[in-house]
Amino acid sequence: MSYDVSSIAASYGLMTSDPETDFVHHIALFAALLCACIVIGHLLEESRWMNESITALAIGLGTGFVILLTSGGKSSHVLEFKQEFFFIYLLPPIIFNAGFQVKKKQFFQNFTTITSFGAIGTLISFAVISFGATHLFPKLGIDYLDTKDYLALGAIFSATDSVCTLQVLNQEETPLLYSLVFGEGVVNDATSVVLFNAITKFDLSDMNSVIALKFAGNFLSLFVFSTFLGVSVGLLCSFTIRTLYFGRNSTDREVSLMILMAYLSYVLAEVFGLSGILTVFFCGIVMSHYAWHNVTINSQVTTKHTFATMSFISEIFIFMYVGMDALDLEKWKFVNDSPRKSFGASGVLLGLIMVGRACFVFPISLISNLTTKSNSNSNKIEFKQQVTVWWSGLMRGAVSVALAYKKFTGSDEQTMQPENALLITTTIIVVLFSTVVFGLLTKPIVKFLFPGSSSHVDESQASSPKSIMMPLIGSGDRNVVVVEETGGGEDETSNLKWLFSNPTNTIHYYWRKFDDAFMRPLFGGRGFVSYVTGTREVALV
Amino acid sequence: MSYDVSSIAASYGLMTSDPETDFVHHIALFAALLCACIVIGHLLEESRWMNESITALAIGLGTGFVILLTSGGKSSHVLEFKQEFFFIYLLPPIIFNAGFQVKKKQFFQNFTTITSFGAIGTLISFAVISFGATHLFPKLGIDYLDTKDYLALGAIFSATDSVCTLQVLNQEETPLLYSLVFGEGVVNDATSVVLFNAITKFDLSDMNSVIALKFAGNFLSLFVFSTFLGVSVGLLCSFTIRTLYFGRNSTDREVSLMILMAYLSYVLAEVFGLSGILTVFFCGIVMSHYAWHNVTINSQVTTKHTFATMSFISEIFIFMYVGMDALDLEKWKFVNDSPRKSFGASGVLLGLIMVGRACFVFPISLISNLTTKSNSNSNKIEFKQQVTVWWSGLMRGAVSVALAYKKFTGSDEQTMQPENALLITTTIIVVLFSTVVFGLLTKPIVKFLFPGSSSHVDESQASSPKSIMMPLIGSGDRNVVVVEETGGGEDETSNLKWLFSNPTNTIHYYWRKFDDAFMRPLFGGRGFVSYVTGTREVALV
Repeated sequence: MSYDVSSIAASYGLMTSDPETDFVHHIALFAALLCACIVIGHLLEESRWMNESITALAIGLGTGFVILLTSGGKSSHVLEFKQEFFFIYLLPPIIFNAGFQVKKKQFFQNFTTITSFGAIGTLISFAVISFGATHLFPKLGIDYLDTKDYLALGAIFSATDSVCTLQVLNQEETPLLYSLVFGEGVVNDATSVVLFNAITKFDLSDMNSVIALKFAGNFLSLFVFSTFLGVSVGLLCSFTIRTLYFGRNSTDREVSLMILMAYLSYVLAEVFGLSGILTVFFCGIVMSHYAWHNVTINSQVTTKHTFATMSFISEIFIFMYVGMDALDLEKWKFVNDSPRKSFGASGVLLGLIMVGRACFVFPISLISNLTTKSNSNSNKIEFKQQVTVWWSGLMRGAVSVALAYKKFTGSDEQTMQPENALLITTTIIVVLFSTVVFGLLTKPIVKFLFPGSSSHVDESQASSPKSIMMPLIGSGDRNVVVVEETGGGEDETSNLKWLFSNPTNTIHYYWRKFDDAFMRPLFGGRGFVSYVTGTREVALV
Repeated sequence: MSYDVSSIAASYGLMTSDPETDFVHHIALFAALLCACIVIGHLLEESRWMNESITALAIGLGTGFVILLTSGGKSSHVLEFKQEFFFIYLLPPIIFNAGFQVKKKQFFQNFTTITSFGAIGTLISFAVISFGATHLFPKLGIDYLDTKDYLALGAIFSATDSVCTLQVLNQEETPLLYSLVFGEGVVNDATSVVLFNAITKFDLSDMNSVIALKFAGNFLSLFVFSTFLGVSVGLLCSFTIRTLYFGRNSTDREVSLMILMAYLSYVLAEVFGLSGILTVFFCGIVMSHYAWHNVTINSQVTTKHTFATMSFISEIFIFMYVGMDALDLEKWKFVNDSPRKSFGASGVLLGLIMVGRACFVFPISLISNLTTKSNSNSNKIEFKQQVTVWWSGLMRGAVSVALAYKKFTGSDEQTMQPENALLITTTIIVVLFSTVVFGLLTKPIVKFLFPGSSSHVDESQASSPKSIMMPLIGSGDRNVVVVEETGGGEDETSNLKWLFSNPTNTIHYYWRKFDDAFMRPLFGGRGFVSYVTGTREVALV
């Protein structure tokens, strides 16, 4: 494909023969394909059976097929990315945005349940998949994997992708379910990456109780220090913007500073050997709680949508790349003699994923329901809600792919090893199958379980819970924009009732008191009126 | 520096020895330095003697010095970028934003004068510098440059950087002067890059009239085709967004599509051997004229500030890199035996820059004044305005650096050649000197020429002419944002007077008629009311 373009350009007579030319062609192709994904994804919006992930996968597959034909079966992808590309450029915006857009009030009110699902659940899922694979893979004739590979597999396939379910759920009609699925997805991302990093860094070849203890300690310290770093950078950013009144002079500086400091938190964590994912996630939460309220309204709108856009582009990029890479013959060559192994392993993993999720969703829901007082019936997790939570975590997406690429590719020799080729192809099959098949089944299943839900959900709300409503009042040059936070819409009485019905809410209550008394005066936050451009008045709350 | 950080991290016990680690350190350092630039630049805002460019240069120099000391004099910069890095990632946002933020009405009303300054002026400047350098460099003992090098030098040093002057000028008090300086800067960027590309692509070693004619034809066709491509992509984007009502579902998709299509226009131009800079500039103009009015208000605010932010970050990044690179001993080693040559060449070039500008600013102003009818006295360019225009183009910045890096670096062997080392060091000296010395003198000079100007200029307006005023009305959860375009603020009577006083305005008048009759119904634009989220009503004008 790229060769055709270059020959056209060469015949045009202006072509240079720089080494960079090929690279530019590939970037042009990627940019064009991403545009196509967005337009087609938008056109298929109405059907609701499709989503951007499936569209991007399909376009990637189609392009890979065309490239495969035009290059004479040599390769199916135009740009071969190093594994760090995913982790340094594509993953940070996705995770930061998850933290930035999380509906903090609901998140912290259901904190115990969400973290149980996200952290403990991911660990259970990891254990089931690792254990199951260790015992089932040899029966398929796959006997060349070591303990570390199995543990890595567990971590890779415990990272869920709940975007598909969130697009179908209605946040207004099933708020508890929505916040559970969203919150679990976010905590799950962070947990699985931290777990994966802890596994790849540790020498687990001869497992014993001392090493296991050390591993657990390492995992915990990684969690604590990463969180601390993320919160610190977020607070520093909020403090800087609040103290120096950045909005006074320029919106661009505020936006630049927020983007750069968010990214800085991620790379700093990587420099110190911590989990950048966890750091940038908490940095996102802190920034949306403090820094976002300290900037001008222009900056608020800009950062909100810029972060969402970066996350969106990164995600469709990953799915498209997976689609292209799925047809890479190099990787399939090594499993060619036994295609049964690859498909068998994928089947086993899909089964383990379903079992692994069932092993924690239903027990944790049961415990959560038992600890919830009977007077707050609306906060019990019904059985059909449990089934939805279970289903929502069956898809595997961008994070799994990024982890698998990090572990099993890199140098060419590494990809050539049979176990790496097998595991990459297996990952691709699982992601393709779960995204396409499970993804397409999601809408019918949710409609079956919750027949009352409205058929059309506003996706801008699905992807960014804290919605900014912007009706155009009047017309012409002056348009009035109303910024409204739905998170603050509940009245105080229901808050008080909530408070005493659930221990988590007591924590939430004390946190809010602490926040109001100490944090907000120092770091700003909602209620802090920033320097207003134009009127030049400073109001401090 | 980076070694200290890694040793700390290593002692922390969690350090990996991946090859990517060093890279992450460098990115962390760059992110931290960029944050520092923004904060310090903001703090020095009040002084007005300083600006971000000088701050970034100073921080770059300081960091380079520290790295030089800690690495034992080995190197002064942490990341060595290939030349294409500037052209593929850093320059497109800067030029696109210039096109996107240009005040189209004033730009097209003064179209003849602005393009005379920007295009013809740049060519004159290029001729003076090339010719002067060809004759004066040998007298300094620099005899190893060929014709192509001299022509490239002319193109490199005809690219101006007028940001510094724009920060000091007041758009309300001297609208003509402001639009002249801004417009010239924008057209100049595009012209010098096109010129540079035409020179490097052509074999100019044996110059004769046929080759000169061919060169001129190539330059013109490059100009025409690049503009055409940029306009086409911009129109395609506007048409797509207008026809498919993207805002209906998601702001993020609109923003993504605008960013990706803008970038696509740039890389497509590069693929076809055209000038990406010119393409992306016109794509920016068309997008701000049509597409920007077709999207939701959220997207309008977001794109406007996102493009400005990307441009801002790219610019300070380039200045910081120049600061770091200035202390790179490798490059200085080759001019070490004769430092006189480097400084002599820089002096000669600075002189030629001043002469070259004088050669076109005053004559073109004279011609412009003669063709302007006497009844519109306010549109004559007074002598002190001419001096300001002349002064505003003396600074050399990001574009010059990017061009010089493209021409004279790349492979290590190339940088080692004495002529390349000489020209890179000369470029660095000219950029450092003109940015710091001329930059610091700008405010006193403008104040001396225009004593009435207010001392404090709103920078958000300076960097983005079409300002969006956002007073906060009331407080609490509902904030009202007023979007107002100052570009439409003039009344119709003054427009009509304008119209017949200047031939350009007649062109502008017919263009507006054509625009209203054919273009807007097809591609949207101001007055097109996009799909409103929340109310779900579609109104078409």
